[in-house]
Amino acid sequence: MVLKLYGWFSSTPALAAAMLLHEKNVPFEWVEVDLTKSEQNLPEFLAKTPFHEVPLIEDGEFILSESRAIARYLDEKYPNQGTQFYPADVQRRAVVDQITWNDTFHFGQFGTRVVLEILNRKYFGMPTDTKAAEEAKKALFINLDIYETILSKQKYIAGNELTIADIIHIPVAARLVQEVGLNIGEGRPNVYRWVSEIIARESWAKAKEIFFAHPSH
Amino acid sequence: MVLKLYGWFSSTPALAAAMLLHEKNVPFEWVEVDLTKSEQNLPEFLAKTPFHEVPLIEDGEFILSESRAIARYLDEKYPNQGTQFYPADVQRRAVVDQITWNDTFHFGQFGTRVVLEILNRKYFGMPTDTKAAEEAKKALFINLDIYETILSKQKYIAGNELTIADIIHIPVAARLVQEVGLNIGEGRPNVYRWVSEIIARESWAKAKEIFFAHPSH
Repeated sequence: MVLKLYGWFSSTPALAAAMLLHEKNVPFEWVEVDLTKSEQNLPEFLAKTPFHEVPLIEDGEFILSESRAIARYLDEKYPNQGTQFYPADVQRRAVVDQITWNDTFHFGQFGTRVVLEILNRKYFGMPTDTKAAEEAKKALFINLDIYETILSKQKYIAGNELTIADIIHIPVAARLVQEVGLNIGEGRPNVYRWVSEIIARESWAKAKEIFFAHPSH
Repeated sequence: MVLKLYGWFSSTPALAAAMLLHEKNVPFEWVEVDLTKSEQNLPEFLAKTPFHEVPLIEDGEFILSESRAIARYLDEKYPNQGTQFYPADVQRRAVVDQITWNDTFHFGQFGTRVVLEILNRKYFGMPTDTKAAEEAKKALFINLDIYETILSKQKYIAGNELTIADIIHIPVAARLVQEVGLNIGEGRPNVYRWVSEIIARESWAKAKEIFFAHPSH
């Protein structure tokens, strides 16, 4: 049975899960959960996860939600398939974990808020909260300056190898650049280099097909 | 050289890191970073982590921040020391990861907000924002009802074995019960059972010594 990925076409973590499945060459079926119709609260979805969130994968009998847990799971299940993103060394993998948590509380938190305010609210028929979007942008830029310093010393965000920590950032970063039109790399040459390289991966183009195929986009 | 744990006495994630070090029987030196004096922004601390947050550990030359990354690291470095919290099986560890992320966006997020609003603001000499505290409590209770359902079917939050996912919840849960006086187990017998058991662990009593030893507490 092919792996199923439940998501909403404009959810950045759902697109991150799709990108990772492409990176690991794991075939999957996309199952749309329409958040504008609250389909995440339907009993059949709640039976899979009481936390009513996408993305969620169904790998045979095994059900898993949370995009970053999905990323780790895919890499641990298929270590030699596609790019290996999660180092075996205990300290190196701890740094990948740390940066993934840093992302949640910094770049990812504020970047996602900008995406929500500017892009996703329109699919819900709601106006952008300009003040909230501007505040999130300001916090995002402070964090991007920290990223610039880190990326001036190493090739990727968790060291000199591409890891899960980089891939997890990309759907938010790409949507900010490609859809919001926010030049996050302006005055930050290393952030520019980093984002450009990862956005250009074939896995991201494939993940975006889910987005472009959707009638509402 | 003994491991150093940098934290602030009233930071729940710093106390979680202390609890885990006690669980793993890893001796450590506590280094206070006074957040009320913005010591997390001093150049010597920023040199350790540009994200200026506690907790942070220094294990010889190795520096790591983010409490949940620290928890995983300690368990992977000392698998046979103290309780083993992180299962070896790929699917079981994926569930532990998932619940840890769920916590961040649900129980932990709202529980931490209540602790911040009611307990930590007083150390900063700021009044409680009653409205914010009440809203956080409301969201916390919705999540506790989900936990009650999960814990009615299994002994611990990620299955029938105690894992890192349980321990990570405890500093927030314990402070809500013991200091805020919030009866999170009222009408939720399984939440009550779960929290009571883990709060009673010796590692939590030892972690709280940091808190009680501080002159401001």
